[in-house]
Amino acid sequence: MDLHRVTDAILHNIFIEMEASGRHVHVTEEQAKVLFGHSLTPSRPLSQPGQWVAQERVTVIGPKGEFRNVAVLGPERKEAQVEISLTDGRVLGIQPPVRPSGSVADSPGAVLKGPCGELALPQGVIAAQRHIHITPADARKFGVKDRQIVRLQTYTARPLVFDDVLVRVSGEFATRAHLDFDEANACGYKTADLGRILP
Amino acid sequence: MDLHRVTDAILHNIFIEMEASGRHVHVTEEQAKVLFGHSLTPSRPLSQPGQWVAQERVTVIGPKGEFRNVAVLGPERKEAQVEISLTDGRVLGIQPPVRPSGSVADSPGAVLKGPCGELALPQGVIAAQRHIHITPADARKFGVKDRQIVRLQTYTARPLVFDDVLVRVSGEFATRAHLDFDEANACGYKTADLGRILP
Repeated sequence: MDLHRVTDAILHNIFIEMEASGRHVHVTEEQAKVLFGHSLTPSRPLSQPGQWVAQERVTVIGPKGEFRNVAVLGPERKEAQVEISLTDGRVLGIQPPVRPSGSVADSPGAVLKGPCGELALPQGVIAAQRHIHITPADARKFGVKDRQIVRLQTYTARPLVFDDVLVRVSGEFATRAHLDFDEANACGYKTADLGRILP
Repeated sequence: MDLHRVTDAILHNIFIEMEASGRHVHVTEEQAKVLFGHSLTPSRPLSQPGQWVAQERVTVIGPKGEFRNVAVLGPERKEAQVEISLTDGRVLGIQPPVRPSGSVADSPGAVLKGPCGELALPQGVIAAQRHIHITPADARKFGVKDRQIVRLQTYTARPLVFDDVLVRVSGEFATRAHLDFDEANACGYKTADLGRILP
């Protein structure tokens, strides 16, 4: 075991790597066909196994503004979801509720515009609740369970402790804490900065 | 003493009212004349005594984007300062350092455009370090000193604890914690939400 592997193992026993998620969209197979004329095309993998950024991009339109060139993540899902920050919401004129991914009931809608067509989503716009994807092995190591709410200390330029961080445990995950850009900027996050679950 | 005054007194012994500062600009007397053809005109008072929003507005221009209609605060200062969030910085293409107000040495510049003229500021763009304005009486009550760094628990929709909060004590202040919009959105701040200095 070389020194790098030792320090890495120690680090990952204490800290969790953080990532900042920019605004992005999930669509269904059918919606991809309306927007782009075909299914999504993988462009680059994300840290979560099997998840990727698509080559395709959309415009997200709200009553007060729009964002062009918004990332679409694949693979396709059963239901559309538009994840934006509260700052983005002010630009669009949409007030997204803070929700775990997948909880879109009674959330506001938005218009998506692709090169081949437009879709008026009746709902699906949320601000993702900050969360930690965690493997079962890491969950045991950190002493946390699926759907537990924890506090996360950030080791960043503007350190803070996030309350109300949702833990999601799955064998299909890589262990990463996910912030939106409001949260990332509020703590002065830079790529690969670390956090720690507080007892 | 009626009930409202009692509860108010108790609340203010424990909590501090928080405010979110949007992007804004401070200019000198001379700069106001270049941009607007005259000194700043008070429009509406701010919570800090003697401070106000001017009727005048400017466009702030960076290498990648601009913001129109940006608030100018008065009275005029000895040195220009442009306070933006890190999110704003991405739009403008400017990386503001996180600094206490007034610390603009070696910070990046920006172009300001008013109805009467333009100014290329060589420096002055910062992200304000989160801070608490506090009266001497309240400083004694909360046991803090000028320039002390404290932790602030927010009682907000997305609660968190801000580390590295700068305390400024002055008889000319009203007691208020000031966040930028990244921080306000990261904690789900709504007008008049409260925070508490942690021991």
